[in-house]
Amino acid sequence: MHGSTIRVAYQGVPGAYSEAAAAKAYPNCEPVPCEQFEAAFQAVELWLADRAVLPIENSLGGSIHRNYDLLLRHRLHIVGEVQFPVNHCLLAMPGVSMSELKRVISHPQALAQCEHTLTRLGLNVAREAVDDTAGAAQFIADNNIRDTAAIASSRAAEIYGMNILAEGIQDDIGNVTRFVMLAREPIIPRVDRPFKTSIVFANEETTGSLFKMLAAFAFRDINLTKIESRPQRKKPLRIVDDSNNGKAKYFEYLFYIDFEASMADPRAQNALGELQEFTSFLRVLGSYPMDMTPLVRSPPL
Amino acid sequence: MHGSTIRVAYQGVPGAYSEAAAAKAYPNCEPVPCEQFEAAFQAVELWLADRAVLPIENSLGGSIHRNYDLLLRHRLHIVGEVQFPVNHCLLAMPGVSMSELKRVISHPQALAQCEHTLTRLGLNVAREAVDDTAGAAQFIADNNIRDTAAIASSRAAEIYGMNILAEGIQDDIGNVTRFVMLAREPIIPRVDRPFKTSIVFANEETTGSLFKMLAAFAFRDINLTKIESRPQRKKPLRIVDDSNNGKAKYFEYLFYIDFEASMADPRAQNALGELQEFTSFLRVLGSYPMDMTPLVRSPPL
Repeated sequence: MHGSTIRVAYQGVPGAYSEAAAAKAYPNCEPVPCEQFEAAFQAVELWLADRAVLPIENSLGGSIHRNYDLLLRHRLHIVGEVQFPVNHCLLAMPGVSMSELKRVISHPQALAQCEHTLTRLGLNVAREAVDDTAGAAQFIADNNIRDTAAIASSRAAEIYGMNILAEGIQDDIGNVTRFVMLAREPIIPRVDRPFKTSIVFANEETTGSLFKMLAAFAFRDINLTKIESRPQRKKPLRIVDDSNNGKAKYFEYLFYIDFEASMADPRAQNALGELQEFTSFLRVLGSYPMDMTPLVRSPPL
Repeated sequence: MHGSTIRVAYQGVPGAYSEAAAAKAYPNCEPVPCEQFEAAFQAVELWLADRAVLPIENSLGGSIHRNYDLLLRHRLHIVGEVQFPVNHCLLAMPGVSMSELKRVISHPQALAQCEHTLTRLGLNVAREAVDDTAGAAQFIADNNIRDTAAIASSRAAEIYGMNILAEGIQDDIGNVTRFVMLAREPIIPRVDRPFKTSIVFANEETTGSLFKMLAAFAFRDINLTKIESRPQRKKPLRIVDDSNNGKAKYFEYLFYIDFEASMADPRAQNALGELQEFTSFLRVLGSYPMDMTPLVRSPPL
């Protein structure tokens, strides 16, 4: 990046899980906090940032359709993926002990994810919902509130000078979020290391066509790692598509598929060629190196 | 129900969307509010309620994996489905006008879903997150707070004696939640009206077997209305399964499929027989009448 640090837009405040995912994806990056997901897209589109890191699915919550919608409405490309375990910590001001706490604050989902563990720790105190996990830590630190703890990441503790009273307090150990990295330009797909390709497609016809569409991959021995149908229910889809003059299109179903092949692989090109015969809309969101860390590797479907 | 009113457990406080879904599913029911989703399951299992109504997927948020997990951990059966449009309203105490508002409170997802509309209404005031939508309305009414509005359902306005300042304030019109109705006993599937069957299955083998599994439906002309893969990533699955002596099982993937056939239909029975050859775990969550209201009807995949 011309000798300068890469700037990575994320949604949240410093200490957010998205910021940690950005740091895992780009170790020496300059994180750029954004209030909304859409602002992170715009930051990259307007050259205020070089990359965006976007949560796309969570092992408890499932796919985040709202962020898939943003991928279709904008022109950014997926250039990588990173999976990040959600590891909630209980944070308080330095010197505060567990018995002094009268309140725990965090995002409602984080409070729900730690409910039983808090009770097991003897913390039967008031729980209050705020906008985000790192924001809860920031609020306590900024106001030096000593009777209140936050549920947030260990990085939030570091940033806001707080103590970690307990670590790994989520009730469910398998809480992992998958993030994708976005850029203005796609990367050139290669075949010398494992690549994954993410596509979205839709069809207007209604005769049981999913089986035909999957044959395009199965007969070429291309493994899928994700498949999901999403009914659209007459909702217009705002797609960035020049042939469409910006008009909204209507589809009955959208399909999300991730498959284990690089678009540089002729098998992938042929599969998409065949898929196009059965679909009225097809978009490659990106072809990118797979995250091969042990945490994340799932076998083919 | 022996001459008495049917009692339906739901998660939330009166005025919650889940309560409205319960009323749509069982028009003259006695709704039983529960603090947590799990408490709604327990209420039915312990005969404190006759049915539970559980949100299972949302058109913006996607499938709620956490609630699929509860279905696998408990022994209840899906006996019906109901789809409910999320229609957010801006509620304030009677006599309060829009210009007097200094704050809007609601669940963070509701605040996010109405962000642009609030700005368009000129409401550039503080937004504060609380635990749930109906709870926000209840809080304002109980404390007679006149400078604060809540985002909640029109039913919450009715219950807590509040005024609706604006209706349908969600930015995205296609915001629909699908709920399932749960009971201790399955209903006897019939073939004289459209039925849907929901199944969950998993396999320990890793050779691209999804295509084989879908053939069991495709070759019998059974339409699918939902398919979703969910990587388990070495997470133990706690399944209620007598053959398993309560031990946790490990799977690489779970699959959720909804198909358009009653289990009374021999085609469905044969398809599941074939599917069982390729899976190490298979459970029918329920076979139940389809919600045929125009809002919801999606064509086969």
